[in-house]
Amino acid sequence: MTTSTQSGRKVTMEEFDAIFESVKNWGRWGPDDQLGTLNLITPAMVRAAAGLVRSGRRVSMQIPINTVAGPDNPNPAIHFVTQGHDIDIGSRGLRFGLDFLGMAAHGDCHTHVDALNHISYRGLTYNGKPATEVLTSKGGTSLGIDAIASRGGLVGRAVLLDLPRFRGVKWLEPGEAVTRAELEACEPAQGVHLAEGDIFVYRTGHHQRRLELGPWDNGPDGEGKAGLHVDTIPWMRERGIAAFLPDGDGEAVPSCVEGMTYPIHPLQIVAMGMLTADSLQFEDLARACEEEGRFEFMVVGLPLRLPGGTGSPWNPIAIF
Amino acid sequence: MTTSTQSGRKVTMEEFDAIFESVKNWGRWGPDDQLGTLNLITPAMVRAAAGLVRSGRRVSMQIPINTVAGPDNPNPAIHFVTQGHDIDIGSRGLRFGLDFLGMAAHGDCHTHVDALNHISYRGLTYNGKPATEVLTSKGGTSLGIDAIASRGGLVGRAVLLDLPRFRGVKWLEPGEAVTRAELEACEPAQGVHLAEGDIFVYRTGHHQRRLELGPWDNGPDGEGKAGLHVDTIPWMRERGIAAFLPDGDGEAVPSCVEGMTYPIHPLQIVAMGMLTADSLQFEDLARACEEEGRFEFMVVGLPLRLPGGTGSPWNPIAIF
Amino acid sequence: MTTSTQSGRKVTMEEFDAIFESVKNWGRWGPDDQLGTLNLITPAMVRAAAGLVRSGRRVSMQIPINTVAGPDNPNPAIHFVTQGHDIDIGSRGLRFGLDFLGMAAHGDCHTHVDALNHISYRGLTYNGKPATEVLTSKGGTSLGIDAIASRGGLVGRAVLLDLPRFRGVKWLEPGEAVTRAELEACEPAQGVHLAEGDIFVYRTGHHQRRLELGPWDNGPDGEGKAGLHVDTIPWMRERGIAAFLPDGDGEAVPSCVEGMTYPIHPLQIVAMGMLTADSLQFEDLARACEEEGRFEFMVVGLPLRLPGGTGSPWNPIAIF
Amino acid sequence: MTTSTQSGRKVTMEEFDAIFESVKNWGRWGPDDQLGTLNLITPAMVRAAAGLVRSGRRVSMQIPINTVAGPDNPNPAIHFVTQGHDIDIGSRGLRFGLDFLGMAAHGDCHTHVDALNHISYRGLTYNGKPATEVLTSKGGTSLGIDAIASRGGLVGRAVLLDLPRFRGVKWLEPGEAVTRAELEACEPAQGVHLAEGDIFVYRTGHHQRRLELGPWDNGPDGEGKAGLHVDTIPWMRERGIAAFLPDGDGEAVPSCVEGMTYPIHPLQIVAMGMLTADSLQFEDLARACEEEGRFEFMVVGLPLRLPGGTGSPWNPIAIF
Repeated sequence: MTTSTQSGRKVTMEEFDAIFESVKNWGRWGPDDQLGTLNLITPAMVRAAAGLVRSGRRVSMQIPINTVAGPDNPNPAIHFVTQGHDIDIGSRGLRFGLDFLGMAAHGDCHTHVDALNHISYRGLTYNGKPATEVLTSKGGTSLGIDAIASRGGLVGRAVLLDLPRFRGVKWLEPGEAVTRAELEACEPAQGVHLAEGDIFVYRTGHHQRRLELGPWDNGPDGEGKAGLHVDTIPWMRERGIAAFLPDGDGEAVPSCVEGMTYPIHPLQIVAMGMLTADSLQFEDLARACEEEGRFEFMVVGLPLRLPGGTGSPWNPIAIF
Repeated sequence: MTTSTQSGRKVTMEEFDAIFESVKNWGRWGPDDQLGTLNLITPAMVRAAAGLVRSGRRVSMQIPINTVAGPDNPNPAIHFVTQGHDIDIGSRGLRFGLDFLGMAAHGDCHTHVDALNHISYRGLTYNGKPATEVLTSKGGTSLGIDAIASRGGLVGRAVLLDLPRFRGVKWLEPGEAVTRAELEACEPAQGVHLAEGDIFVYRTGHHQRRLELGPWDNGPDGEGKAGLHVDTIPWMRERGIAAFLPDGDGEAVPSCVEGMTYPIHPLQIVAMGMLTADSLQFEDLARACEEEGRFEFMVVGLPLRLPGGTGSPWNPIAIF
Repeated sequence: MTTSTQSGRKVTMEEFDAIFESVKNWGRWGPDDQLGTLNLITPAMVRAAAGLVRSGRRVSMQIPINTVAGPDNPNPAIHFVTQGHDIDIGSRGLRFGLDFLGMAAHGDCHTHVDALNHISYRGLTYNGKPATEVLTSKGGTSLGIDAIASRGGLVGRAVLLDLPRFRGVKWLEPGEAVTRAELEACEPAQGVHLAEGDIFVYRTGHHQRRLELGPWDNGPDGEGKAGLHVDTIPWMRERGIAAFLPDGDGEAVPSCVEGMTYPIHPLQIVAMGMLTADSLQFEDLARACEEEGRFEFMVVGLPLRLPGGTGSPWNPIAIF
Repeated sequence: MTTSTQSGRKVTMEEFDAIFESVKNWGRWGPDDQLGTLNLITPAMVRAAAGLVRSGRRVSMQIPINTVAGPDNPNPAIHFVTQGHDIDIGSRGLRFGLDFLGMAAHGDCHTHVDALNHISYRGLTYNGKPATEVLTSKGGTSLGIDAIASRGGLVGRAVLLDLPRFRGVKWLEPGEAVTRAELEACEPAQGVHLAEGDIFVYRTGHHQRRLELGPWDNGPDGEGKAGLHVDTIPWMRERGIAAFLPDGDGEAVPSCVEGMTYPIHPLQIVAMGMLTADSLQFEDLARACEEEGRFEFMVVGLPLRLPGGTGSPWNPIAIF
């Protein structure tokens, strides 16, 4: 496979806008819809996903919360043990350990799910709502993460496409962008097919690279990261993908769109209303898939009910 | 039913200690066990729990995160929208909403799960580990919430015992303690039986009372709250309950143990190593059970992977 | 003295706007001025203020930082000891106590100083700058508290007008508004005269009332608070007051302006560019003034250098 | 000047302990003293310090609060604008800018003052108090920063010893330790003499190096930093230094004591009860001293009244 096939060609802003228009789900589920592509997961699909549970094996996809600053974690979480068992609280031998956790919802290094209010494009959020009505610095009124969290989060059938496995490498290198053609080639190689209402688990090996080489600056002024080519977006729209779970965040950096740094997120979140997560890790999952002999499984991901939240830390799991 | 039956008799510290000894699971799953009663949920039970998914209906059990101080929330969560869509970041029409969340793991008003390092009694945590080796204010070394979170959280069959429904009241009043006898009477009235590896969902109507009457000081110097009598603890041990999910926190205040404010938590967490949660809400769940015509369902609860954490906010769901 | 004299008459929005125009200092110290009325304190005045130091006695005007939620402190500061001396860090007998402090700059209960970017009126901040250029939720570009902090904060001659002492009461009651006439009567009664470049220390006894009666809701929907009538603003402009240090925040609640909740702050900060502080306490200061036999003294107040900050906690002192 | 003169010889732990004993001020100002060497500043000295104010020029010694992670700032402050003027709060044209600041008291990169409860040695704090009675992770009972803050902070005569100026270099290099001999040589070269009750301002050029070369890891596993040799401690005790204000933190890294990483702080804080600050910047101050033609001036430093705090951010100023 050649580099050009792997990373695809550069796309103009005009082409980006044409893709944006062509994949829009605005109005598809009513003017006040809060769920976006999660609407594609029918109750019958939830039952079918539960039917995938056979061995009962569970695998977490969260990176442990990282309180250490680094090139990809400039604003680390803060975590204090505010009371340890060294503290006698004078209560009949009882002592209580207490702690405090503070973190920004978004950050390359913290596994989280994005709310549909997280991104706007040209003044509009998903469903064409004026962005400044949806979320200002005063707070949010709709499309917050609580909309998804209060309705039971993400539950459905998931399929892993393991790109490093497909290519026979340990990980995709920063800057590489996976095209629609490669995803379509990877599916039969793994014996799977992504269909309407499915959760797409997309592995580039980002976390494995970090484990082996250490953190790096993967932003636009740094070393970059592997992700998706924008030609995968129409493919996701055609297939009816309900949710996108990547390691990294699915964005190739440098981007494949001329002049736009992060084109994938707005196409997913703003245009399609797709549930999108960032910075998961699939090292345990990839191993489990090999051992279980299958790349499909039930996924449950449960954001916190944070009113107006632009996202939430979460710990989604695969159940085999 | 008389008040004495509902609330049971007062128990001495000596009796408390005898119960503590009689229900201990220390060493039962090895000296380095991190999971406690979650060990009782076998892979076959996970599969069986998934088999309960029929309608695909999902119900959240989390109270929305509460940033408003009040008598039961003296240390409210902090949540800031740090960037709204009113902010032009000069990126080709793209804007990003960002926020920050900070909260203590424990608090009567925030739905959370307790780690096994949360409580010690007489210098020891679950499994008889010296508490000051397990968790100091410097941090935790074992039994933290990450131990459970990294292994896929809580997944299993759950049974709701709806005490207000059983009694024909809107909620249990502060100070009332539910006895073993009442739990055993409630089971057949709902057509259920709690067995080994089950998740016990225990409703007192605490949250419904709060919705109707407003927040109140439910601590030892305040108006108190409804909970369990300690005689339910041996019953849980006999039945092999794997996890305990209450509204409120399961503690009757004033306590039924002379001289001890919170006796239920140490018996569950320290003696039995039981996964215990605090401050859930079951208003939506109770309605769903009525409508679905059953009081058993699959539960998934996913703590965050917070290294050494004494607990975690979470949003557990029931799936019907 | 009658209530009408004490509290003055109600003022319309039109009169408010006329006062606003009449006291404006916009452009007075150049279009890029960052200091407002602090420009009135000349180096010679700083030297003269230092000349007031005779006994060397110092008095703090800060209320201890309050981490307890209450009716006037709905978002308390957070303060964690993150490492105590109970923690052996394995360093040759050395141990270090560490803590973390988090707080909002503004709040009725926390002694703080306001930056000139804190308030805008009709889209403009002090000096007529467009408010959305000065400070958005993305951050601040000018008029932040660092502008004052980096130039050495507040140093000058201060005069205390002790209104409860003047009236012979323990404190002014919520809702009372002190007029220009009363200030002018209070001066000779204390043997002082406020002049250009002076720091005006204004005592209503707010903190003393809190110490004796406990906290109360002093907001527009609560019990209110004592403050200034707007007719004191032209008086401050005429006199050339450089800074305003009140207990409470100088605002009478309910306000004396029809339809506007907090009229004093915008007149001071936006129109005049006056350094204004909130929620100081003068119980120790009032006692010291009596004992020292004078109501004038040197004041030093030192905000933190927080880039773009809308204010800062601070601990200003009087030196006699 | 030879390197050995500049940096002095290595000292053993036994010698360290002997110095510790010889400079102890325990009991000197009573068993319950909270002020340590601040007791040396008499009211007359405060008046004399005020007498140094001639030009009225003021210079801040704080580094702007740094929210950017880096090798010397692994736990940056958090600062959020929580409401900008872009937010219409519907209040008659009035808008309010709001923000939140959170920070650890201690950190190489944040200008702060240490409380006397900050350090313990062999189980004891200043004045021989058992450290676990003074401060645990539950909170502090005495010797907190509020003890100093409530008494009016630090006010007195200060003298700058500008070591880079003395040596004719831009800054002292990491690892260099300034000896007593060099301090004594620097004094006459600058025409000053430090005496009882004086504030010792000690410049190594740490901040200038950071401005020019960027941040570096100045910890024990990093590139180190310039500071003091322990032989300066008896000199400070003999002279009666009341407070120590360094850039960096006065610690040479690597340390001059075999096997102990930070020997200067415990000698100052635990043994002598000296008010000690960390991480100030004197670039503006050094320039002002040159221009004013003198190296002595009034200093005012005002910690926050944080009950039990182990330190406080502050913005001390020099007044000429």
